[in-house]
Amino acid sequence: MPSLPPNEQASKLIEFPIATEELNLFDHSMIELPTFSRRKLLGGLALSGVGTSIASPVYAENKKAEDKIHLKKGMTILFQGDSITDARRQNRDAPKPNDQKSMGNGYASMAASSLLAGLPHLELSIFNRGISGNKVHQLDARWQRDCIDHRPDILSILIGVNDIWHGFQGKYDGTVQRYEDDYMALIDRTHKEIPEVQLVICEPFVLRCGAVKDSWFPEFDSYRASARKVAEKYSAAFVPFQEMFDQALNYAPAPYWAADGVHPTHYGSALMADCWLQTVRK
Amino acid sequence: MPSLPPNEQASKLIEFPIATEELNLFDHSMIELPTFSRRKLLGGLALSGVGTSIASPVYAENKKAEDKIHLKKGMTILFQGDSITDARRQNRDAPKPNDQKSMGNGYASMAASSLLAGLPHLELSIFNRGISGNKVHQLDARWQRDCIDHRPDILSILIGVNDIWHGFQGKYDGTVQRYEDDYMALIDRTHKEIPEVQLVICEPFVLRCGAVKDSWFPEFDSYRASARKVAEKYSAAFVPFQEMFDQALNYAPAPYWAADGVHPTHYGSALMADCWLQTVRK
Repeated sequence: MPSLPPNEQASKLIEFPIATEELNLFDHSMIELPTFSRRKLLGGLALSGVGTSIASPVYAENKKAEDKIHLKKGMTILFQGDSITDARRQNRDAPKPNDQKSMGNGYASMAASSLLAGLPHLELSIFNRGISGNKVHQLDARWQRDCIDHRPDILSILIGVNDIWHGFQGKYDGTVQRYEDDYMALIDRTHKEIPEVQLVICEPFVLRCGAVKDSWFPEFDSYRASARKVAEKYSAAFVPFQEMFDQALNYAPAPYWAADGVHPTHYGSALMADCWLQTVRK
Repeated sequence: MPSLPPNEQASKLIEFPIATEELNLFDHSMIELPTFSRRKLLGGLALSGVGTSIASPVYAENKKAEDKIHLKKGMTILFQGDSITDARRQNRDAPKPNDQKSMGNGYASMAASSLLAGLPHLELSIFNRGISGNKVHQLDARWQRDCIDHRPDILSILIGVNDIWHGFQGKYDGTVQRYEDDYMALIDRTHKEIPEVQLVICEPFVLRCGAVKDSWFPEFDSYRASARKVAEKYSAAFVPFQEMFDQALNYAPAPYWAADGVHPTHYGSALMADCWLQTVRK
């Protein structure tokens, strides 16, 4: 881990610039937000249980996710994606539901442990089948076994950083248009097989450090825009990871959240889990 | 993971029997608790970020921890204990602070990721040096390198289940008195070397399933009582894990939280992290 410079932004921890009515630590539909001050609330949130002061404010984008996802008893949730989702999971060929080793060490595992701890009566079955290095077309190549056969009720996908990164590395000649087309074809295929699936599309994100150079931009932004288009076209919940990390930079520098700019630290993953849960919980 | 029987207790999720004024999702000293109903609040908590409906209520015992632990900038936090703390950590001989591999996959890692995500400006250094199978005297045997040399500002210890378990297995002839005496000698030694250390003593716990037979009781309860005596003698914060798991049994059966009765599932660990953070945050 990089050593951290003194963080001049520390005082912002309790001055997060959002309106009180935008806080969604609780589900808005169930709770009338109380009148305690924003400043005190965010100060208190900093260590409230496993929550965080940074992730707990709602992001503009995930407000739009309202009513997209409905958790019900007995549902299967599947996480799909690349190394960020994979997170060194074990039992790779036959992942067991809700099993720590099968879930890896990233945001998927953290979100799963919170769901399973907080909602045991729902008897959810949660799987992770992310694979390091994957691009969209590689998801497609293994989609029957690694998605369709699971019959997920809720399918969460985080994909895109390799679609651009492997291009910069000369390992892939895809374009943002191919990313978008492949992504939409994958969702079409999924809908055809599992019409009732509830979709969670996660925004690809990078931090500007490590492997992520200025030359990535503005091209990377067009990949994010394509992911958003996919979410909108298919009425998926959209998890705004880039917006979240952009806000997190007010509290600590980029390498704190992802040393190589792509793979989050475990506390970067904790922010992601919180953001994912907020979106799915809307 | 064991399959779960239908949970007759599911409806209790939003009827947790505590008074509104006992909720400590937020720090009491900073927040006037609002007037929304307990029922709505707990319903909302079930999926609020990484929090849980079960862990979020305050436990009777950790109310006593108030003002025991003061987190400050630049502090070192050390987790010590047995396999439950160890949790398959890597980089065992030279653990790196705040490093996911060095922290393992248990409650210590989960608590650390929350602290580091929520309070980056504190620039904490968090270590885990739990070792599977340890009893108190084995902590003592490696205490210079694995505790004193770290100069922890906050030292959290979870130890005791092997002190009794290895006795049942015929591998150890210790008694509860030896556990208590060894534990107090270890803390005396620690205080002598690091007078300003802030102590967190975690309650040993078991779930009644797997390896944990009726024959463990009431002897196991006397080990818990000894841990509590240690905490009280040294004015340590006390983390009431047994009380927490006893309450968790209202929501799911014992094997859901710890299949062998001793080692928690990752969602059992999530409850522990939340409970630990509540205590330290008081």
